[in-house]
Order: sequence, then C-alpha cells, then structure tokens
Amino acid sequence: MDPVLVEVIRGGLTESRHRGAVAVVDTDGAVAFQAGDIDTAVFPRSAVKALQALPLVESGAADRLRLSAAEIALACASHAGEPLHAAAAEAMLRKAGRDAASLECGAHWPSSQAAALALAASGGRAGALHNNCSGKHAGFICLACDRGDDPAGYVRPEHPTMQRVTAALAEMTGTALDARNRGIDGCSIPTFAIPLRALALAFARFGTGRFLPADRAAAAARIRAAVAAHPVMVGGTGKFDTEVMTALGARAFVKVGAEGVHCGALPDLGLGIAVKCDDGAGRAAELVMATMLARFLGEAALERWQRPVLRNWNGIEVGALRAAACLA
Amino acid sequence: MDPVLVEVIRGGLTESRHRGAVAVVDTDGAVAFQAGDIDTAVFPRSAVKALQALPLVESGAADRLRLSAAEIALACASHAGEPLHAAAAEAMLRKAGRDAASLECGAHWPSSQAAALALAASGGRAGALHNNCSGKHAGFICLACDRGDDPAGYVRPEHPTMQRVTAALAEMTGTALDARNRGIDGCSIPTFAIPLRALALAFARFGTGRFLPADRAAAAARIRAAVAAHPVMVGGTGKFDTEVMTALGARAFVKVGAEGVHCGALPDLGLGIAVKCDDGAGRAAELVMATMLARFLGEAALERWQRPVLRNWNGIEVGALRAAACLA
Repeated sequence: MDPVLVEVIRGGLTESRHRGAVAVVDTDGAVAFQAGDIDTAVFPRSAVKALQALPLVESGAADRLRLSAAEIALACASHAGEPLHAAAAEAMLRKAGRDAASLECGAHWPSSQAAALALAASGGRAGALHNNCSGKHAGFICLACDRGDDPAGYVRPEHPTMQRVTAALAEMTGTALDARNRGIDGCSIPTFAIPLRALALAFARFGTGRFLPADRAAAAARIRAAVAAHPVMVGGTGKFDTEVMTALGARAFVKVGAEGVHCGALPDLGLGIAVKCDDGAGRAAELVMATMLARFLGEAALERWQRPVLRNWNGIEVGALRAAACLA
Repeated sequence: MDPVLVEVIRGGLTESRHRGAVAVVDTDGAVAFQAGDIDTAVFPRSAVKALQALPLVESGAADRLRLSAAEIALACASHAGEPLHAAAAEAMLRKAGRDAASLECGAHWPSSQAAALALAASGGRAGALHNNCSGKHAGFICLACDRGDDPAGYVRPEHPTMQRVTAALAEMTGTALDARNRGIDGCSIPTFAIPLRALALAFARFGTGRFLPADRAAAAARIRAAVAAHPVMVGGTGKFDTEVMTALGARAFVKVGAEGVHCGALPDLGLGIAVKCDDGAGRAAELVMATMLARFLGEAALERWQRPVLRNWNGIEVGALRAAACLA
C-alpha cells in the first residue's frame, strides 16, 4: 500500500489525496530516498524519452543530419504544440528528407490552450506536428533514414528503429523488455513496465555517464546539454519541466510522463529520481518531483512548485497542494 | 482506508488505480450499497447544484420571471460553454433585467474543446457566460432580483440570496453548514463539506419528494422534469451527465462535481447516490456512478460508461477502465 504523498487542501480541510511511490537512487543502485513500493513495474510513458533518444545521438545520426541542440532537445520532449515546437519537428523531418506525412503519432490540437486557440483563430487545424510526441517521432524517423531503413511502421516493436530504441531502454534500465511487460503508448509506440528503482538507476547513469559505454555517456551528456540550453523545447511555456530546468539549468534534468510519472537526474549528485502516483495524477507527481529536487539541491527557486496555490476563476486563493510528511 | 474502486488497465497490467467511497441510500437513510468511508465530510462542489436551485423554483421566482424548462435545467448545470448554454444564461439574466456584467463566477474558455476552438476561430473571447457555472449564477441573480435584493456580492456567504441557497442545502442534507466546513468553490460561491451518506440521503429525497415540504417536493419534481427534458443543458455534447440522462430519461438524475464527486437520484427506486474519489479523478467517479446505475437499474444502455475503452491518438485501443470487484 503506497503512502499518501500529496494532499489537496480547501477551506482548511483535505479535499483529495494522492498516493504513490518515489525512488532516488545513486549510480551504484543505492537508495538515497524511498517512499512506497519501488519494485513493482510501472509504465514510464513519456518520462523515458531522453533514454529513447540515445540511439539518435550515439549512432552519429544526429550529427550526420546536422540536428541542432534545440532539435535534439525536441526529440526528448512532450511539447505543448507551440509554433516553435511544430516548426522544429518539421525541420527535423526535412533534414531526413521527409515531412509530416511520415509521422505515425497521430494528430491532436496543441496541449497549450493558448497555442490551440491561436491556431484555431488563424484558421489552422490540428496536425501530427502538434502532437506532443512529434519531436520524438521525428527523431525516430531521422534514425531510420540515417540507417537507410524505410521509416514506415517505425512505431511497431519489430521495426529495426524501434528495436534499437528498445535495446537502449533495456540496457539503461537493466530490465528485460518484451511482450510480457509491453503496452501501447498514446503515440502508438511500445511502452514497457519498469520498476521505479530501475528507472531511477537509469537516470542516475544518464545524468553522469557512469557505468555507460563511452559513446553512450557522450550521447547522454550531449542530450543533457541540449535540454539545459533549450528547456522550452522539452515542454513549453509555463510547463513544469521547462520552468524547473530554466531555473536550475544543467543541475537537474526532469521529464514528465503520462499517468502520474516523473523521472529526473541530478548530475552533480549522481542521483536519479523516479515518481509514480498510483492514480495517474500529474499535479501530484510534479509536486513530489519538486520536493525531491528541493530536498537534494536545497533550491529556494522551487518554492512555487513545492507549495502550489489553487486559485479559482476570479483569482481568489481557494486552496493548495502540499507534500505529505513522509516526503519531508 | 478507502478501497480501490477503479483500475486503469494498459497492456494487460494495472497502470493506475483510484480509491474512493460510494453511498447509495434510501429516503429513510437505510444504506442500500456502500463502499469505503461514507461518514467523513467531502466537498460536493458542483454535484449539489440541483439542490442549490431549489429556492429559485420553490420561491416562485422562476415562474414570475418566466424561466423556461431549459433555463431551469441550466441553473443546475456544469455546462460545456457551447453556444446554446451561453445564450440560455444570457436569456435568464435578461429576464432578471441584468446582463453578463452581473455574473460573479469569473470567465473561462468553454470546457468543450470544440466550442472553445470555434469561439476562437470566430474571433470570440472567453467570457463569464462560458463559465460552466454561469447558469447556476444566473439563477442566483434571478432569485435575488425577484426578491428585490441587489444581486451584487451574491457569491458571499452573508448575502441574503446565498443564505437562502445555503439554508436549502443544509435542510436537504441535514447538515449544519457554517465557517467550520466551508471552502470557496471554483466559481467563488461557498462549498460545504458534507458526508456522502448525507448527500445520498438528500438526493433520495430530491428524487422522490418524500419527507420534504410540499413546495419543495414540487420544486424538486419540476427541476427533475426540466433536466430530463433538456439533458444537454446540464452538461453538453458528449458529457457523461448529458449522455446518461439522454439514455435514461427521468429514471435517473446525475450530476458531476469537481475533484471526483458524482451525485445522483433514482426516483422510481427511492434511492440517492453519492460518490467521491479520494484523488479527485472524474474518470473514476463517472465509472462508479455508471456501475451503480447499472446495478440498480439493470440498464444495458450504460455498457459504454461501465467499461470505457482507452484509445490513443491513432484510435488504437490501448487500455480500459474497469470497476473493482468490490463494486460488483
């Protein structure tokens, strides 16, 4: 039974509560902090996009196709579908000799309400470039084209590109990934259930390069630097990951996943972090991640993420989210 | 510790789980079904709008202002901000000699993405009429104006209109409502924490009129008939409450509230229902409500709400929500 990690307060009473688990692990696998069950496998969803982007960089494809740092950051993104995100995804595809028709992620309106409304106001429509995963998919297409593979069907587990991506994820997490722990993600690629302990270890190593082959360690450093230089590409205006990495720079890498997952790395401390809220609530996962970042970095800049205030449509403060005592 | 009521399945594994409580109670207060803790107070939020609309009807204000059945239904709504909702709220205000400037609910874009995008595409902007609570607020303004009270400040606990509304809620639920159990709702009116057992009892009586004064019983019947005749006014296109009441007609009254609350009445059976998901998840509260409706009404039309399928952006079935065994 996972403990309550986050409480939602209104009128001085607890209105809602979120249970979950969090693991903070060093590069040797030693647990620096733990709450809840960190050994049952959970679907990390988009929280592992940076690990899935490793083959694009370590294979040399990113260099041969002259992907910019901003484009490498977009390959790790769950972006808000703002114009700069759609444009960068399109540019990546162009460098691979492709266009948006090659994307197999499906179309949706930008997750940024402002971007969606502006798109509608300008007579635009939702397309695959606006899909929050379009940068990751553009990266897969770049990897396929660079290898001389036909990218068609790259979302399927048996496609050579997806096999390379899955192999990197399996190596980083030390977890066997196969049909037994496989689901289909929102963008149609496979997602594999992996314990939080293994996810945190993978991010500790991603953040430091320790225990990784030289080319993979270099690729991880390159991806971290790209994200730290272009945090807006990884999320978007006002998004947690973008705001936190804008504040902390290269001191922290953080990445959201659907259904209440958040993963991160603290390179200077050699730590990886993995969070899963049992109920899938992103608001709680963000608060847990902010609490872990503040705990290990002692960073005052995270105050607004650690103690979010709830305001209503008139801007009146009506409540707050707060971390439960077990995270203190 | 509330039990798991709903599981989210992906790839054959449980990805997320929702705990919560549900009470089904008859007009005497006898419990027909229970799971979890039904005696701790929870904020019902918008799930009690129909009870808050009783003074508008029982006072005669709705008749004197010639409110239509559709407008009475809108007074109970958390609507999607579609054009018919905004127009009806505006018409209610006009009948009170007022306009949207009197609304104190705050402005937001329609919760219907289609309506929001269409509004943006037509050059429109978010206004208070699009606020999902604008019908309820228009009803409060109608009540105030009919009584000769200045509606200004009607959202405050001490305003005579809000005192009438709060008195009706206190009488229906048999619960003392004061500063000790009061919070501020998303639309700025007071919300009071009330146990699920008391909420279910209130809806059992709302659904039947039993143990209510004659004018209140008549008002409840009038509101139920208005909602059954105009279910689209209470929610909107594709919304759970609208779809379920379109399917079931006057056999069920159901109403969503924020943070995982759902209340309902089964008039023919003399039962009231109240659901709260601990984590505030509406997707789980809907499934619990659908499961209760099917349990007591034996209704095959609810199948799609009882076993919702999760599809991704390509329309591929990737998972499902399912009721836990304790609800069977």
